[in-house]
Amino acid sequence: MHSGKYILFYNPLCHNHLMNKKSIKNITIVGGTHGNEFTGAYLAKYWLNNAYKVQRPSFDTQVVFANQKAFKEVRRYIDRDLNRSCSHDLLNSSVSSHEQGVAQELNTLIGPKGERDKNSDFVIDMHTTTANMGVSLVISNESELTWIVATYLSEQFPELKIYRWQGDEEGAFVDSLGSDGFAIEVGAVPQGVLRADIYKQTEEVVYKILDFLELYNSSIVDIDRKVTIYDHVELVDFPRNSSGELAAMVHPDRQDKDFSEINRGDAMFLTFDGETLSYDLDESLYGVFINEAAYYEKGFAMCLARKIEHTF
Amino acid sequence: MHSGKYILFYNPLCHNHLMNKKSIKNITIVGGTHGNEFTGAYLAKYWLNNAYKVQRPSFDTQVVFANQKAFKEVRRYIDRDLNRSCSHDLLNSSVSSHEQGVAQELNTLIGPKGERDKNSDFVIDMHTTTANMGVSLVISNESELTWIVATYLSEQFPELKIYRWQGDEEGAFVDSLGSDGFAIEVGAVPQGVLRADIYKQTEEVVYKILDFLELYNSSIVDIDRKVTIYDHVELVDFPRNSSGELAAMVHPDRQDKDFSEINRGDAMFLTFDGETLSYDLDESLYGVFINEAAYYEKGFAMCLARKIEHTF
Repeated sequence: MHSGKYILFYNPLCHNHLMNKKSIKNITIVGGTHGNEFTGAYLAKYWLNNAYKVQRPSFDTQVVFANQKAFKEVRRYIDRDLNRSCSHDLLNSSVSSHEQGVAQELNTLIGPKGERDKNSDFVIDMHTTTANMGVSLVISNESELTWIVATYLSEQFPELKIYRWQGDEEGAFVDSLGSDGFAIEVGAVPQGVLRADIYKQTEEVVYKILDFLELYNSSIVDIDRKVTIYDHVELVDFPRNSSGELAAMVHPDRQDKDFSEINRGDAMFLTFDGETLSYDLDESLYGVFINEAAYYEKGFAMCLARKIEHTF
Repeated sequence: MHSGKYILFYNPLCHNHLMNKKSIKNITIVGGTHGNEFTGAYLAKYWLNNAYKVQRPSFDTQVVFANQKAFKEVRRYIDRDLNRSCSHDLLNSSVSSHEQGVAQELNTLIGPKGERDKNSDFVIDMHTTTANMGVSLVISNESELTWIVATYLSEQFPELKIYRWQGDEEGAFVDSLGSDGFAIEVGAVPQGVLRADIYKQTEEVVYKILDFLELYNSSIVDIDRKVTIYDHVELVDFPRNSSGELAAMVHPDRQDKDFSEINRGDAMFLTFDGETLSYDLDESLYGVFINEAAYYEKGFAMCLARKIEHTF
């Protein structure tokens, strides 16, 4: 039993609930969804050669190195973002891009998406970010097991942050192929760079998830049904000129301040002429994915989130 | 006069020497040599729209946004590395790649390379790095003016480091098109990211160079003929397996430690199994370009340099 100091005990208040709990038979760990996010790609390669590291007695673990072609070219994607390619539409229409093909293969391995009986009970999709987000989870579903695992991780890693993404694209994420799961985002690390510290942090979180799922299968797990999360509110684009080009940079006071509160009047952007542009909303929110390289093309400089106590 | 606290005075010992000094008539600032190094690209765009910022009374300043096609695709290059494409061979043969064409255009604007009369007297090529190199100069020529400017900058910015590159490719750098000049490398910043702090540091160094060249044209400049530099010794590749794939990462103790001394027994790499590989040379050297994203494909994890007092 690898779960360290975590204590399990029987709580009669949770009894009915936990008697119906799901049994985990198969899980999938995905790396290299984005070809220039090396941490997940190299972890996937390592575990494909060292399967015993991710196997546990009560379930099977499948490791997938997703976008190998993009990895070889050190690009996020070849034709389109794989992590926006797992929508029902793209999974069920003829293949017209490299990533659509990969998404359909993943759906065979993990899904079928939306159906009750799937090949995989839990999906861990490993990502990195150029934003200073530390170890964080990006959750875009409401499944109970997802929240149980996330809450457990936030107890085990007090610095871990949970960001609930509720944008238009959530239904097309790789982890949406399964009924339960999430993306792990660890940063800051440049695209195309393998940083040992980021690699080790990601590896540790995955082992912790596996050990917990093993425990979950065999024990009554009592866990708090409340967890602090950063709940997506809106996207903030860079100031741009009439041609759509950047007219300002993320302000030095905002850079690297992911999961910090932003109050009215705080610096947000710095124009090339040196003018500071400030936050002008009445509600204080929190910046997430601040200055992530991959989001320049998507048209946002950061996300804003509300810090809440989420109960499930 | 913008040179701040720098004091000029007449030194009779230097008189003969300085009477023969070169007069600067034209200089060139290049940004976007690599399309995913945003600092130089955005500075070039800014100065193309705000030319007065880089003009000085005694010389003309030309600003070049070099690889715009690669910038649009957020890639280092389209076909081949532009900063390895300015060799005599490539400048004087028919164009077979996008970057060879750009190199020949740059040679028209700046050179002709190797000829005495050039269109530009000094070249500043702006780069960024994912390595934690702070503000540094990469010098690959022996021209006196280059070293005078570099020495002046190291006096003005005590944290600035000078790395003298003496590899096989030095003759193909963009700054080799001029008789004098160097590359500025500022980091750490991910590829495809604009960081305001890195942008402002680069901008400040360029303005300092321009102000100094203005001063140089009009005054007798007395400057120390000795400067501390990091002199290239060798390249160190990642440990690789028989297929050429990475078998280890830069060790956490080495990551971000650019321009720090490495002694026998110090940690260099960490294998995916957790084994530490150590430095085994007798001579203590200094790491430079540690874990630079662009050099994975070139086959090195860092450069090793000797710290010396360089006289010129």
